[in-house]
Amino acid sequence: MSNPLVGIIMGSDSDLKVMSAAAEILEKFEIPFEVTIVSAHRTPHRMVEYAGQAVGRGIKVIIAGAGGAAHLPGMVASLTTLPVIGVPVKSSNSIDGWDSVLSILQMPSGIPVATVALNGAANAGILAANIIGAYDEHVSNKLSEYKQELSDKVLTAVDKIERLGYKKVLEHNMSVHK
Amino acid sequence: MSNPLVGIIMGSDSDLKVMSAAAEILEKFEIPFEVTIVSAHRTPHRMVEYAGQAVGRGIKVIIAGAGGAAHLPGMVASLTTLPVIGVPVKSSNSIDGWDSVLSILQMPSGIPVATVALNGAANAGILAANIIGAYDEHVSNKLSEYKQELSDKVLTAVDKIERLGYKKVLEHNMSVHK
Amino acid sequence: MSNPLVGIIMGSDSDLKVMSAAAEILEKFEIPFEVTIVSAHRTPHRMVEYAGQAVGRGIKVIIAGAGGAAHLPGMVASLTTLPVIGVPVKSSNSIDGWDSVLSILQMPSGIPVATVALNGAANAGILAANIIGAYDEHVSNKLSEYKQELSDKVLTAVDKIERLGYKKVLEHNMSVHK
Amino acid sequence: MSNPLVGIIMGSDSDLKVMSAAAEILEKFEIPFEVTIVSAHRTPHRMVEYAGQAVGRGIKVIIAGAGGAAHLPGMVASLTTLPVIGVPVKSSNSIDGWDSVLSILQMPSGIPVATVALNGAANAGILAANIIGAYDEHVSNKLSEYKQELSDKVLTAVDKIERLGYKKVLEHNMSVHK
Amino acid sequence: MSNPLVGIIMGSDSDLKVMSAAAEILEKFEIPFEVTIVSAHRTPHRMVEYAGQAVGRGIKVIIAGAGGAAHLPGMVASLTTLPVIGVPVKSSNSIDGWDSVLSILQMPSGIPVATVALNGAANAGILAANIIGAYDEHVSNKLSEYKQELSDKVLTAVDKIERLGYKKVLEHNMSVHK
Amino acid sequence: MSNPLVGIIMGSDSDLKVMSAAAEILEKFEIPFEVTIVSAHRTPHRMVEYAGQAVGRGIKVIIAGAGGAAHLPGMVASLTTLPVIGVPVKSSNSIDGWDSVLSILQMPSGIPVATVALNGAANAGILAANIIGAYDEHVSNKLSEYKQELSDKVLTAVDKIERLGYKKVLEHNMSVHK
Amino acid sequence: MSNPLVGIIMGSDSDLKVMSAAAEILEKFEIPFEVTIVSAHRTPHRMVEYAGQAVGRGIKVIIAGAGGAAHLPGMVASLTTLPVIGVPVKSSNSIDGWDSVLSILQMPSGIPVATVALNGAANAGILAANIIGAYDEHVSNKLSEYKQELSDKVLTAVDKIERLGYKKVLEHNMSVHK
Amino acid sequence: MSNPLVGIIMGSDSDLKVMSAAAEILEKFEIPFEVTIVSAHRTPHRMVEYAGQAVGRGIKVIIAGAGGAAHLPGMVASLTTLPVIGVPVKSSNSIDGWDSVLSILQMPSGIPVATVALNGAANAGILAANIIGAYDEHVSNKLSEYKQELSDKVLTAVDKIERLGYKKVLEHNMSVHK
Repeated sequence: MSNPLVGIIMGSDSDLKVMSAAAEILEKFEIPFEVTIVSAHRTPHRMVEYAGQAVGRGIKVIIAGAGGAAHLPGMVASLTTLPVIGVPVKSSNSIDGWDSVLSILQMPSGIPVATVALNGAANAGILAANIIGAYDEHVSNKLSEYKQELSDKVLTAVDKIERLGYKKVLEHNMSVHK
Repeated sequence: MSNPLVGIIMGSDSDLKVMSAAAEILEKFEIPFEVTIVSAHRTPHRMVEYAGQAVGRGIKVIIAGAGGAAHLPGMVASLTTLPVIGVPVKSSNSIDGWDSVLSILQMPSGIPVATVALNGAANAGILAANIIGAYDEHVSNKLSEYKQELSDKVLTAVDKIERLGYKKVLEHNMSVHK
Repeated sequence: MSNPLVGIIMGSDSDLKVMSAAAEILEKFEIPFEVTIVSAHRTPHRMVEYAGQAVGRGIKVIIAGAGGAAHLPGMVASLTTLPVIGVPVKSSNSIDGWDSVLSILQMPSGIPVATVALNGAANAGILAANIIGAYDEHVSNKLSEYKQELSDKVLTAVDKIERLGYKKVLEHNMSVHK
Repeated sequence: MSNPLVGIIMGSDSDLKVMSAAAEILEKFEIPFEVTIVSAHRTPHRMVEYAGQAVGRGIKVIIAGAGGAAHLPGMVASLTTLPVIGVPVKSSNSIDGWDSVLSILQMPSGIPVATVALNGAANAGILAANIIGAYDEHVSNKLSEYKQELSDKVLTAVDKIERLGYKKVLEHNMSVHK
Repeated sequence: MSNPLVGIIMGSDSDLKVMSAAAEILEKFEIPFEVTIVSAHRTPHRMVEYAGQAVGRGIKVIIAGAGGAAHLPGMVASLTTLPVIGVPVKSSNSIDGWDSVLSILQMPSGIPVATVALNGAANAGILAANIIGAYDEHVSNKLSEYKQELSDKVLTAVDKIERLGYKKVLEHNMSVHK
Repeated sequence: MSNPLVGIIMGSDSDLKVMSAAAEILEKFEIPFEVTIVSAHRTPHRMVEYAGQAVGRGIKVIIAGAGGAAHLPGMVASLTTLPVIGVPVKSSNSIDGWDSVLSILQMPSGIPVATVALNGAANAGILAANIIGAYDEHVSNKLSEYKQELSDKVLTAVDKIERLGYKKVLEHNMSVHK
Repeated sequence: MSNPLVGIIMGSDSDLKVMSAAAEILEKFEIPFEVTIVSAHRTPHRMVEYAGQAVGRGIKVIIAGAGGAAHLPGMVASLTTLPVIGVPVKSSNSIDGWDSVLSILQMPSGIPVATVALNGAANAGILAANIIGAYDEHVSNKLSEYKQELSDKVLTAVDKIERLGYKKVLEHNMSVHK
Repeated sequence: MSNPLVGIIMGSDSDLKVMSAAAEILEKFEIPFEVTIVSAHRTPHRMVEYAGQAVGRGIKVIIAGAGGAAHLPGMVASLTTLPVIGVPVKSSNSIDGWDSVLSILQMPSGIPVATVALNGAANAGILAANIIGAYDEHVSNKLSEYKQELSDKVLTAVDKIERLGYKKVLEHNMSVHK
């Protein structure tokens, strides 16, 4: 794989079950990326180093996921000029996710973090593609195709519900998800 | 001014008192931009048109500000492959800003909006610069200088408080803000 | 079935398990309706078309269900003069439903959405019947009967608890719901 | 004025400063209405009477505004088959309006209230017009004109900001609102 | 059983699994009570009747439980001079219980409801006993004994943890609750 | 004045501007009461003494007001068998009043506090009267008269708005409150 | 074990499943401690005694855990000059933990409680060690080692993810937690 | 002044109007301290340095105040073994203070911050004194005196209200605060 354009970081590999969705999206869009573990609170010096070297290593976007009092995205943003996308992760003792959402979103003036929805790692991957696609036509085309796919899935569902009626579709969904 | 790279849009010119901070940051960073009014709810067709033409007009990033049930950023994101930065605006009958924050942040999978803090238009401008700076060294250097300025202001404050003591600084601040 | 008077729309057929309750109520009240899939974010052009043609097709009320940053009800309301009933759906990564409630309820002045309770699709169906019943005596009578049924069920429960005592009723409920 | 089609009720005439916006909209749309005081908690018998007689008096829609533990809209809905629009009013000791929003919105299955935004009395008026307009072409046309006005105001603002630039518009707004 | 002093009411017998705790406390304190079903929204006329006759029937305290937009306690309070204790019940589509808490607690000036904790039916029973005990020494003594029991249970736990150590107690609790 | 039946306590005389409303109501209902200062956190021993002696001194109801982490009502309830009414006071650094509401309302099983609305001291006074009135016909009659007064005020407002129209009443209210 | 330096208290031994984490941390750091049951609401006199004697018994820090309307930490703080660490416990009828968080955190000026995260008993133990370690080099060294351990675990995870790739690590975690 | 035992830090001297209360308390208790500016986001390297050197410079407790997405207290805690007291500051674009409260309080396991109430800088100062007083009898005595002062103020207020009656005290307070 060529040099990574996107760095996906998180405080612990237990966050992978949420954060891997960002990686999967980038694979789909053929954007080279790296995934590693950086903890703001347990490895603050590694965080300073990682953030400080990202531009020099050719990274274009950093995606940082964190839960609870989530300081990783904001601290990384304070240490780089790159766009940093923050993914609030709903962790076990979180107060319904409000803690991670607010400690990523409400950054002070001067140090933005591009925040996505709670557990929204797939959207973080797409947002990274939006950013890269603004300068890379290959990615931009992939994004257009992806939008078409999303739309096509809806139209398939429209067709199904109009042919079968809502009750059959509901029954079918129920049996599948049982 | 050369062709705009950033489009700053909002539903009403009454949002300018918040959103102009994005424009001022872009001026400071010498990034060409445009400011106009696009309302999701009052001019839905204009919104479809604006979002649909942005890529073709050379726009790289769209900044959209909205309050209450804030649909403009998300709807624009559904209509373009560009990165869309959403600014939740605390409007008069807002429920403490929660409405605009949540209706911008909590986008469904597939359609991200890069959300910044409540009334965080300055940070939206900086985030647009982060994105453009990832591909434009002139902007990247401006961002490094800006970070240095932020740091220098803190160091000046450190110096002042260490020379004068906290009481003098407090008295001085009080008299200035009276 | 005659021409639909109510259009029930939602972003995905996975919302059917909540939204089908609206359809069931309308069947009970013998009000013709249609159920289809319209996504604000994945099929914005279809949404514009659907909302724009509803009046001409004889629709009297639109019921729109959506979760998270729920833009479908409000955007449809911006595109039609019909009453739009919004159903906040509690989706999987929702922040306790607050996101869908607030992004449907807090519409700006000029573009109302008639919002019902979280997952309140049955009430959306009844509200559609309230609206149609204001002009259609058959439906109005059905509504009166329905109110009587609700009351009768309470009175049956009153009778049961007064005959058996609360402990027997509780035991019985417990064994049934085991 | 001909027989009222809309009944606007509230618990106290101190709510008029919010609720009068509903009346003004109905005047604009030439829909006959009445405004009176009905308190769920201080005149419960009057409330039962008012709600019970509304259909017979030719009322098509009831708009009920209330603050705090706001029971008027829901109780009226329990006593009539008409559509009831609830306006949560932000009263002085309200907990940020959450109390009135939730006690109007979260009605149990069987008894819907069409809830609008906090202090959203103007939208309650428009929603009443949406309902009446579904059966009355004159009102429907008025609503189309109103949507056009909303759109035209945006386009005028677009024109102004494109001619003068955002700074001039901002300065002008500032001086006007001083 | 002698004439009931406490009326325990709720909107549906499905609330019995929460509300029966109030009845059990009253049995323990030997206070005569009745349990029945009264729905504010489905049997408003029965509610008016029940509340209006309570004083005459010798009732001293009414305990009313309700979920969601919980209007029963407040409406009953508006229809009687007796103290009304409200129990917010966390129902299935509740927004985390906030809706029932706020629609019971935040009553307007003039019409109080004595609100207890979410699902706090046992405490509603004790509060009824506190009220009756202020005028009835037998009940007051029962309350003193109950307080002693609560204290004794703590002292038994103190003794156990001091003899066995916290680990043994924890292990024991774990095995019991498995 | 005869022996007080109601004890009104609060942590500081700065709470009097909220809590005096309870005293005024009790005066109106001719119920003897006392007002004093008891702080859970600054005078815990005085609190233990006050609560422990209340029954013996003939007190029937204790009204306790507190803000922030409001422990006074709950701690007093743990130390007496009397009914304790808690008034959440919105103090200066309160988080919108949620802190005092929740730390008074959410008492554990065994120790209820009869909680009223935020700053609802008048309702605390009325609730004390409801309790005393359940055993004292003079007070019960006063409560009936008070309910009649509340109703009469509404009917006067009805009359005024029906004679003058809502616009005149609104104008008049505006000029009065200027 | 030598005289306890830390007292860990809670209202019921059912809190042990959360609070035992504090004890385990103190064992790890070789700090002598005691664990016992003290209930603010069920044994208020025992609480006064425990808090009043703590300094004299050589205790340096008190850790108090409580749920719901959590008064134990704040009341103990009012009765001692020792630092009191409060652990909000998410109990069964808690409103998402907000009640215990706010009733511990929002103490009035004069009586601080050192509040840690919801269910954060392990952190309470570490904070006690931070306090003792400021005056005891043995504990301070243990804390440095602990920080190193936390960091080493991250570095091991970094190594694993860089060697195996994120997919293998994710698969492995999934199979372990199945 | 002798070597500082407490370091009071904040991100900007505009926080002094809140944070100076901590300094004033420490002066009162004759505990040497320092006040300086350290910004997590604008001077991350200075923050690393400050936190890393605190133990060596003889500091025993760090008090860190911050608003919005408040990372300073938690990041400092990750970089030292000293107890760190976090003061959530309610800044201008804060969402009612929830953002700073949650991003300081909800620290992950391993890295505690001793959080005090919103804007609770005075309590942060007292908590620092509690910590130091656990090892320093002079400070411990000062704390006992301070508790006595708090109690005496209440007793003075008790005396005043019992002599003058609540109405006179209320009038007097009103006239003073006008």
